[in-house]
Amino acid sequence: MGDESAIVESLDDIIKILVATDIHLGCNEKDSVRGEDSFIAFEEILELAVSNDVDFILLGGDLFHDASPSQNALNKCLRLLRQYTLGDKPIEIEFLSDQSLNFLDSLNQTVNYEDPNLNVSIPVFSIHGNHDDPSGFGRLSSLDILSSSGLINYFGKWVDLQKIEINPIMIKKGETQLAMYGLSHIHDARLARLFIDAKVVMEKPDDKTGVWFNLMVLHQNRADRGPKNFLPENLLPEFLDLVIWGHEHDCRIWPEENSVKNFYVSQPGSSVATSLSEGEAIDKHCGLLQIYKNKFNMQELPLKTVRPFIFDSINLADYADEYDLNDGDATEKVMEIAKDKITEMLERAKLKISDNPRQPKLPLIRLRILYTEEDQMFSPIRFGQQYNEQVANPIDMILFKRAARKQKFHVKGVDKEAM
Amino acid sequence: MGDESAIVESLDDIIKILVATDIHLGCNEKDSVRGEDSFIAFEEILELAVSNDVDFILLGGDLFHDASPSQNALNKCLRLLRQYTLGDKPIEIEFLSDQSLNFLDSLNQTVNYEDPNLNVSIPVFSIHGNHDDPSGFGRLSSLDILSSSGLINYFGKWVDLQKIEINPIMIKKGETQLAMYGLSHIHDARLARLFIDAKVVMEKPDDKTGVWFNLMVLHQNRADRGPKNFLPENLLPEFLDLVIWGHEHDCRIWPEENSVKNFYVSQPGSSVATSLSEGEAIDKHCGLLQIYKNKFNMQELPLKTVRPFIFDSINLADYADEYDLNDGDATEKVMEIAKDKITEMLERAKLKISDNPRQPKLPLIRLRILYTEEDQMFSPIRFGQQYNEQVANPIDMILFKRAARKQKFHVKGVDKEAM
Ligand SMILES: [Mn+2]
Ligand SMILES: [Mn+2]
Ligand SMILES: [Mn+2]
Ligand SMILES: [Mn+2]
Repeated sequence: MGDESAIVESLDDIIKILVATDIHLGCNEKDSVRGEDSFIAFEEILELAVSNDVDFILLGGDLFHDASPSQNALNKCLRLLRQYTLGDKPIEIEFLSDQSLNFLDSLNQTVNYEDPNLNVSIPVFSIHGNHDDPSGFGRLSSLDILSSSGLINYFGKWVDLQKIEINPIMIKKGETQLAMYGLSHIHDARLARLFIDAKVVMEKPDDKTGVWFNLMVLHQNRADRGPKNFLPENLLPEFLDLVIWGHEHDCRIWPEENSVKNFYVSQPGSSVATSLSEGEAIDKHCGLLQIYKNKFNMQELPLKTVRPFIFDSINLADYADEYDLNDGDATEKVMEIAKDKITEMLERAKLKISDNPRQPKLPLIRLRILYTEEDQMFSPIRFGQQYNEQVANPIDMILFKRAARKQKFHVKGVDKEAM
Repeated sequence: MGDESAIVESLDDIIKILVATDIHLGCNEKDSVRGEDSFIAFEEILELAVSNDVDFILLGGDLFHDASPSQNALNKCLRLLRQYTLGDKPIEIEFLSDQSLNFLDSLNQTVNYEDPNLNVSIPVFSIHGNHDDPSGFGRLSSLDILSSSGLINYFGKWVDLQKIEINPIMIKKGETQLAMYGLSHIHDARLARLFIDAKVVMEKPDDKTGVWFNLMVLHQNRADRGPKNFLPENLLPEFLDLVIWGHEHDCRIWPEENSVKNFYVSQPGSSVATSLSEGEAIDKHCGLLQIYKNKFNMQELPLKTVRPFIFDSINLADYADEYDLNDGDATEKVMEIAKDKITEMLERAKLKISDNPRQPKLPLIRLRILYTEEDQMFSPIRFGQQYNEQVANPIDMILFKRAARKQKFHVKGVDKEAM
């Protein structure tokens, strides 16, 4: 990463980008408590783009939770984009590349801010994820709809999956030149195959045109979920400077260096918990990416409207002696243990209340209880009723999981739930 | 209707409106032959709006065929609206009324051409029909989506169905003042009840503000389909000058005078045949409505991209003697009769080919055969196969219908199929 001193040289030469992924609009939209969460977080992201005066917004896929979003979700999205990304702010970036190549397989082959009929203040660029990939009659992505409305620039869509030739979006601002390589979600095994067979071609800008910052955005499994079930970082080319990695929901936005390939990877994570997994409980952020020539700086922007979520896990084996759990019916005792734990978790949830008045306050709580005997279990739904007023998800607060009697090897805690 | 001479006085004082209804975007969209028909006709309507240099477009409901249109239909609609209704043409109409009242129950309470971020050349105003009425989660109409995208002004939406208070959209151009009363589709029986109970209040502009042309647009059954199953014209108030009647698909756009109430009714009809009924075979038009003070002129604009459709009917009783139909198995003979008839219908269809190259040429053919004995019937699907290359709808070209033996009274030929 570039050092701070380099970044402040000249504002006219710094490309400022608001980076976010996995916004999952419409997730749980019919839930009377949590229905607005995804939209509230998206609005905060858009506000951060405005207040940080960025040149554009870059989204890494899964903007929508459903491939065919409800009219409610689509409508709210259009309204928010219209409210925050149109206006009189002049666009300071120049589009240098061939738009018909950049948006080759998209329906709209022109960037929205060059449309004289739309007054765009903050262009939004997005690839699709696995949740908003092209589907149904006409093989359209919901991003095609947004693109047709003029509110999003949908790139990195590939129709021919025999060979992928990525012509980067080339953007210039002052002395900084950015090449942005978009790769929308492709089935992991297929994509790994394409990389291995050298069928993913990334067209670098001509060296004669000076220094370029090479930024890639993609949406794939990053964690090792078995062979061909993820995209190994090392398959990506060395000339990249930074990869924005969508799809993984845990926030690891702070850029991590890949020491083999000498690029950095930033994984912004989701802005709404789509599952009650451990990774979703990590504090959520979007990023302010500043690029100056071949240097960059990623500033983590904490999302303050995200509903507090505490995940914890207890192993009843650790309580067996103290509570005499092996002495007959243990249900009541386990309920006591769970109650105490949840009381503590509710306290921790309070620490996640931000100063943003629009943050939903009722927390998400997930306690995983590792048990060994059936008689240690109780009904999570009935148990949850006493927390109706304190918790956003009373009915699925408790998750019982049988403890492996002999754990032969440590299974990496990878969340396979919907991302 | 006004006489032509009055209309030409001053172009600056004439409000020009392109009028259309029941465009049914997405109707039969998955049909490999007919899939584009609805979109082609809509594009022609938009082109007519441009070439006739209208002040705005007025749609009478059922813009979409499905309450939750496919992404394909929504996408095509957005693209067409963006292509034809944005641009540099200055808006010459003034919006005088309180927009928060006009768009009271709509999500967007401002007219799109006053949005400084959109360069609207032709505003589109629309009510909803029964096909695009609010539905599903959030009770949204697909018109809400278009309205959120800024491409349509959705009015005449009523949420409270206990009492309806219509505050007209008041528009002024030079010396002409137009009050436009929108009433989106409401279940016929309920609406008739509301009218009878005097619970539909239409707020006329103050007389002191001069002469107003009172134009209503609605979307209801007009033909008598039994008590409370239609909206009797005579329930509408006398002060109206013209009613644009949506929902009925047969084109009766030429204004018909209601001599009791002294207003005119214009029924544009659909721009695509959603069913193979007699009414849909009538030549389709949209209208160029010109208003000057309290006079108007409706010019019928033939739609030249509508697929030719010939409907006809034969009664086998009329052929019984000549063809000896009662002498044993008549199937072959009836097939001969049908073939001859269809040959003739195909000739008639050729006369409907226009000079517009985008018109789909393969005709729709519907022959209704009134029969008396089962042995007169044959398989319409197998019969149709020989017309695969000549007809757009080979499998449902023939419709057998049992002839009523003694017809006690004449049943009015009203089409109850999807409108
Ligand atoms: Mn994903
Ligand atoms: Mn995701
Ligand atoms: Mn209708
Ligand atoms: Mn209709």
